Amino acid sequence: MQNRELYYLTKKEKNTKARLGELRLAHGVVQTPVFMPVGTIGTVKTMSSIEMAKIGYELILNNTLHLFLRPGLDIIKEFKGIKNMIRWNKNLLTDSGGYQVFSLSDFRHINDDGVIFKDPMTGSKHFFNPEIVIDIQKIIGSDIIMPLDECTPTSVDKSYSKIAKDRTTRWAKRSRDYIKTIEDPPFLFGITQGNMYEDLRKESILELVDLDFDGYSIGGLSVGENKEIMYSITDISTAILPENKARYLMGVGSPEDLVETVGLGIDMFDCVMPTRNARNGSVFTHFGKMNLINAKHKTSQLPIEEGCPCFACQNYSRGYIRHLFKTREMLGYQLATVHNLTYIFNLMKEIRKAIEEDRYPMFKKKFYELYFHKE
Amino acid sequence: MQNRELYYLTKKEKNTKARLGELRLAHGVVQTPVFMPVGTIGTVKTMSSIEMAKIGYELILNNTLHLFLRPGLDIIKEFKGIKNMIRWNKNLLTDSGGYQVFSLSDFRHINDDGVIFKDPMTGSKHFFNPEIVIDIQKIIGSDIIMPLDECTPTSVDKSYSKIAKDRTTRWAKRSRDYIKTIEDPPFLFGITQGNMYEDLRKESILELVDLDFDGYSIGGLSVGENKEIMYSITDISTAILPENKARYLMGVGSPEDLVETVGLGIDMFDCVMPTRNARNGSVFTHFGKMNLINAKHKTSQLPIEEGCPCFACQNYSRGYIRHLFKTREMLGYQLATVHNLTYIFNLMKEIRKAIEEDRYPMFKKKFYELYFHKE
Repeated sequence: MQNRELYYLTKKEKNTKARLGELRLAHGVVQTPVFMPVGTIGTVKTMSSIEMAKIGYELILNNTLHLFLRPGLDIIKEFKGIKNMIRWNKNLLTDSGGYQVFSLSDFRHINDDGVIFKDPMTGSKHFFNPEIVIDIQKIIGSDIIMPLDECTPTSVDKSYSKIAKDRTTRWAKRSRDYIKTIEDPPFLFGITQGNMYEDLRKESILELVDLDFDGYSIGGLSVGENKEIMYSITDISTAILPENKARYLMGVGSPEDLVETVGLGIDMFDCVMPTRNARNGSVFTHFGKMNLINAKHKTSQLPIEEGCPCFACQNYSRGYIRHLFKTREMLGYQLATVHNLTYIFNLMKEIRKAIEEDRYPMFKKKFYELYFHKE
Repeated sequence: MQNRELYYLTKKEKNTKARLGELRLAHGVVQTPVFMPVGTIGTVKTMSSIEMAKIGYELILNNTLHLFLRPGLDIIKEFKGIKNMIRWNKNLLTDSGGYQVFSLSDFRHINDDGVIFKDPMTGSKHFFNPEIVIDIQKIIGSDIIMPLDECTPTSVDKSYSKIAKDRTTRWAKRSRDYIKTIEDPPFLFGITQGNMYEDLRKESILELVDLDFDGYSIGGLSVGENKEIMYSITDISTAILPENKARYLMGVGSPEDLVETVGLGIDMFDCVMPTRNARNGSVFTHFGKMNLINAKHKTSQLPIEEGCPCFACQNYSRGYIRHLFKTREMLGYQLATVHNLTYIFNLMKEIRKAIEEDRYPMFKKKFYELYFHKE
């Protein structure tokens, strides 16, 4: 936690809970609502940092657990931070590894001290606790960091959800206390948990707000629950989160979820979906998702989406990109990725403009009509 | 075969058989000696056509057999040629599929009519003959095409080598006769064969020269024979090939082979080695090959080669690219590829300059000293 403020609210949309703001970060001011592409091991898959900046991104996410395992802290230290290694001179947010520990590792042992887990690649055991993950993120050199949390799957019952939520709060307090001892600290968020239980969610938020963080993440969503529940928990959360702090909905990033939850007052997002879908040949357009591998594109000389300014659409046809996917040429994965990342970047721009002009309900209606139209 | 000349000899180096020339092609004049990167199914692996042009390439090779199988002629026809599909507005050379049929297919049946072979992916059977491969290359839309030939492995004895050489000559004649019937024909080369037998090689060349092609390819080399034999066959070949026609050494492209055989009078090259090596983490520098995966690079903040103008060297470190290879990130393969293609492009420029300045022996000596220096 820094002494200066991270988030500045600049406008509230008239008709919805949508809002405009700024993240005043050391490596450039970031306009919110903002989508952060996921660069798991430093790199947004298939993309160079130069190409990311060319699209216009100024804030990306890296996964702490992945970087901790590979390339590892010794190498990152030699480079004086991952940003120097990946040559990214803009802003970086890292997760705490909490979610990753719970989703990737088949072995883990958790108690209030912290969590022991195995590297799924090598089998080697490691220990994370709230203080360690802050130290790691400090070595990585993030601008915004997350505290260790316990993220529960939807299958967990209420009593365990409460145990995990309570532990997340205790760990949040340890994190807040520990970061005060650190020189030149990054911004620290609190991660709210409570599974799909409204009362636990509210408790979690109130406990964390009481501890006072630089921003608040809504964790434990987008893990398989249906959209109504996700939207409802988001709505309940933003209702009680303080207005003057950034709200980050973790792991969310389909076009419709971005449009929907910005309207519920969310400022920040991250998700692998745009890049992962791209590598499976699934690309976004204003007229919905398109499967490039579909035979109907095989002689198409159209770009993925007409008018799209991305490198793929400015230069190549659906037919060619389909051919690249059919022959598993890496260029295909890259062209689809640059398109999806450009689409999402521009969607966020359109979202911000609609908020600016107080026409968010109309924008959302129009978006849904086009995106889910029947051919 | 066109009515106009393809090749113009512009200078002979004083001390060696090296020479400068031009290929006056419809989509830009190409300076020789020239290296042609291999875009097997249209795409030089990991590279977009835009990036290829950025390096400076003006002539690439595509594989006829691969394109015939995937995307197939129907799709290529819809695009009015592969160049429109891959968006390459410069020059294209295609092989005849002969070498590919003999190296890729486990099933083939050859006689003077042509060759039946199986698609290794689907098992479907296809028939190529000299006329068919010209039709295919015409549909592909190449600027320079190759006739069907029979390429024999080094293991073959002299009597079969002669059979294959004789068939190659008969097919060359059919090709030359057939292309005269085609409207707006591409340039057609003759491919010399004869395995590693000097007398057969000489016979092959004399027979083909007698038929008069737009250029001459030396086929059947770089197939596992030792370098002395390859250099010797090349030397014998260029001694009797006509001075006023381009000479193309097929499948050759290691830095030392380029330097050596330019000195023997070769004008054109193609090889997958620069791009394939790159994808295995092996990159070229003026100080020899470098294995990026080697642990010694793990914290290196140096570029692959200092002073290299390529996208990889201008932006990224060995340590980062090693990390990309260790985590199998596609960006790593791409950065290594752009480097190797830039290295080879610039090596050809240095080669041409050395010829221009009549200092090829000194250039070659210096190249070997640096490239094979002991650390």
